[in-house]
Amino acid sequence: MSATDLKDFVGSFPHGDLGRSSARLAAEHPADLAAALQEIGPRQAWSILEHAARPRQADIFAYFDPVFQAELATIVPRMDLAAIFTQMNADDRADLYKKLTEEQREVLMPALAQAEREDIRRLAAYDEGTAGAIMTSDYASFSPELDAIEAIEVLRREAPNKETIYRAYVVDADRRLIGAVRLQDLITAPADVRVIDIMERNTHAIHVDDDMEDAARKIARYDMIALPVIDARDRLVGIITHDDALDVMEAEATEDFQRLGTVTNLAGSVANATVAMLYRARIGWLMLLVFGNIFSGAGIAHFEDTIAAHLALMFFLPILIASGGNAGSQSATLMVRALATGDIRMSDWGRVLGRELVVAVLLGLSMAAAIAVIGVFRGGPDIAVVIALSMSLIVVVGSMIGMLLPFVLSRFHMDPATASTPLVTSIADATGVLIYFSIARALLSLP
Amino acid sequence: MSATDLKDFVGSFPHGDLGRSSARLAAEHPADLAAALQEIGPRQAWSILEHAARPRQADIFAYFDPVFQAELATIVPRMDLAAIFTQMNADDRADLYKKLTEEQREVLMPALAQAEREDIRRLAAYDEGTAGAIMTSDYASFSPELDAIEAIEVLRREAPNKETIYRAYVVDADRRLIGAVRLQDLITAPADVRVIDIMERNTHAIHVDDDMEDAARKIARYDMIALPVIDARDRLVGIITHDDALDVMEAEATEDFQRLGTVTNLAGSVANATVAMLYRARIGWLMLLVFGNIFSGAGIAHFEDTIAAHLALMFFLPILIASGGNAGSQSATLMVRALATGDIRMSDWGRVLGRELVVAVLLGLSMAAAIAVIGVFRGGPDIAVVIALSMSLIVVVGSMIGMLLPFVLSRFHMDPATASTPLVTSIADATGVLIYFSIARALLSLP
Repeated sequence: MSATDLKDFVGSFPHGDLGRSSARLAAEHPADLAAALQEIGPRQAWSILEHAARPRQADIFAYFDPVFQAELATIVPRMDLAAIFTQMNADDRADLYKKLTEEQREVLMPALAQAEREDIRRLAAYDEGTAGAIMTSDYASFSPELDAIEAIEVLRREAPNKETIYRAYVVDADRRLIGAVRLQDLITAPADVRVIDIMERNTHAIHVDDDMEDAARKIARYDMIALPVIDARDRLVGIITHDDALDVMEAEATEDFQRLGTVTNLAGSVANATVAMLYRARIGWLMLLVFGNIFSGAGIAHFEDTIAAHLALMFFLPILIASGGNAGSQSATLMVRALATGDIRMSDWGRVLGRELVVAVLLGLSMAAAIAVIGVFRGGPDIAVVIALSMSLIVVVGSMIGMLLPFVLSRFHMDPATASTPLVTSIADATGVLIYFSIARALLSLP
Repeated sequence: MSATDLKDFVGSFPHGDLGRSSARLAAEHPADLAAALQEIGPRQAWSILEHAARPRQADIFAYFDPVFQAELATIVPRMDLAAIFTQMNADDRADLYKKLTEEQREVLMPALAQAEREDIRRLAAYDEGTAGAIMTSDYASFSPELDAIEAIEVLRREAPNKETIYRAYVVDADRRLIGAVRLQDLITAPADVRVIDIMERNTHAIHVDDDMEDAARKIARYDMIALPVIDARDRLVGIITHDDALDVMEAEATEDFQRLGTVTNLAGSVANATVAMLYRARIGWLMLLVFGNIFSGAGIAHFEDTIAAHLALMFFLPILIASGGNAGSQSATLMVRALATGDIRMSDWGRVLGRELVVAVLLGLSMAAAIAVIGVFRGGPDIAVVIALSMSLIVVVGSMIGMLLPFVLSRFHMDPATASTPLVTSIADATGVLIYFSIARALLSLP
């Protein structure tokens, strides 16, 4: 059952008894097999996978990452690929279809049934990031007039082809969603009760063009097994299942993490990213921030006389400007995550601002007290006053920048996570330089 | 159905028809009602909640956040609280129990049945953060000897008291877990087939003392509806359901976010955090980093002669040290998240190091080229050489610090996210000062 053990098995396949090896292929979880097969490359992976049963092949295929799927698709014989394709869940199949080249599609599509081709094209047509792009058409539905026994019979018959039968959807003659029924309620209901009498009417649903993240949040908020997806005319077009919600939320959290650290557009696994992908994901912001930091440099150059007269000021420069950036990073991190999870909404900004100001003043005073002690020893009482004043102001301003920037970005329909810690730090740095040397120039005598 | 609409309803309750208001209390989703009730404070919330039916009260209660639950518990009459307690899911109940004061527990416990008291004490005894602490004892289980019809009958009977009946667990006479059965397979099986013949034997399970995050990752990896939890003797003691996995993953992601921004121990909602909570969560690292930045200051002071001779160097100081910190933040962010999601493992560090070095050298060279151009205009060719050399070295060293620190922390069993961006920035800053001025002193003539 262990990963290493499985890797050994895959590596040694099929030395030995092919029957036993096939049994093992059938017994392990497809997620584990996919992970082990991915490590040995597409050609060898197929040489093993071809010994598995069709539905099994499809299950394992769905767990490969998209890049590996596309590579495999160039190796697997056309008829095998078509058969696997047919067995795959509708949503996984549409995802794979999107990764294929035009040429691969042309070879593959004629091998599929008309209905399947249409289903794939329809699912693949939704924009990336929408509910439509992650939904599946493998849902169970029936008319409100069925009784419990009939409904169970429908589910029993359709079970093998549906992603879940634990929740079935009730639609009218025009396929408009009118309710949902739990399998649990069907099996505990008296046999002659009609679906319409036990269905849940206020079913939460989501529009096919809505953000997939909103779909995931709904599933999380209402502890749902599946969320129905409807089109502009309220017709049921698909469902999004709980496991997809988990994947979406994990991917979104990773994207926000990376954006907060100024790493952009690095979709997929960091482990498998190439040097070129990493370089591209990082160089843009690094360059931009270089130019941002020119302001700090210009600020320092502007105060060259003051610095030349009091070189001791330089000792405190890194501490002061870093503290503004650090306080700002804290505020930005808190706000970006709270906005992403819906813990804080745009409309809360006024209330949050007031509280942040109080917190920032307290933090600034605490740190001013600490730095003043060092200041007395290092530069005398005059310097101590300058740095204590500067510290409190810099921490307050840094915190405000870190707190407000995510709201401002949201306001202009940009991702709040664009208020990355390096960006907040750069702005806080430049502001810190100005505050520090302005106070110094005002309070200290120039020779 | 909208949140504002619901807030109005709650605010105006029960002016008007109490019957219709109660009907509405019964129709809305408990998550929405809980959110609306939480806004009006515990006393008013109870004045509305007391009009709802018992099971409904329990459903809504479970959606309140823990702090609000504890407040409510001091207001709700003892017998009502005991009745709600009895109706709640085992895991929600145990969570609430943990929040009660010793006094509240003593008042409440005698009102409960013996079996319930034991169940609560047992569930509440597991350490925070373990699988045991989030599991529920409301699972369905039966013996392997039942046939499909008998098994469905058991599930039908027990359904109202179980968190899920979509997956039932098969245990032997000693309650050892031997398999799992999907309700879907039971209803599609021939009536006389025995459970032992259709159960899944290689059921993934988790030990009760294992990390709850591992449980959530298993549920995500294997797309499970519920994960069985076993004790040291392989006996089934509970299950963790898919919706709890979502909550755990969201909470863990938030914790990592905050830690990466040096905000510590701010459990729960940021929106509802008090000034004192925020201050405590932020001051520790801010203070620590002040002292960290003294090294940068000391570095600058050490090179005072060089600076005095070439004041133009100061112009580039913020750009150079910020770039090291920015590159380091990127690397740290990527590594912390990849380690948390299991995308990269501890054993990968060597391979990742090599790739990071290549990426960092490319980034460093690109940025050196950019800064050299500014250097020529601003300080002449000598300065340009110094800053270009410094930039490439600083970016490489900063990236290495950001990449390696999370691994080193992991190695010493600390959370990789402790390699926060401000920490990486501080270390990179101090290193940057040393690199920059050392190169400057070596290459530029002192007067």
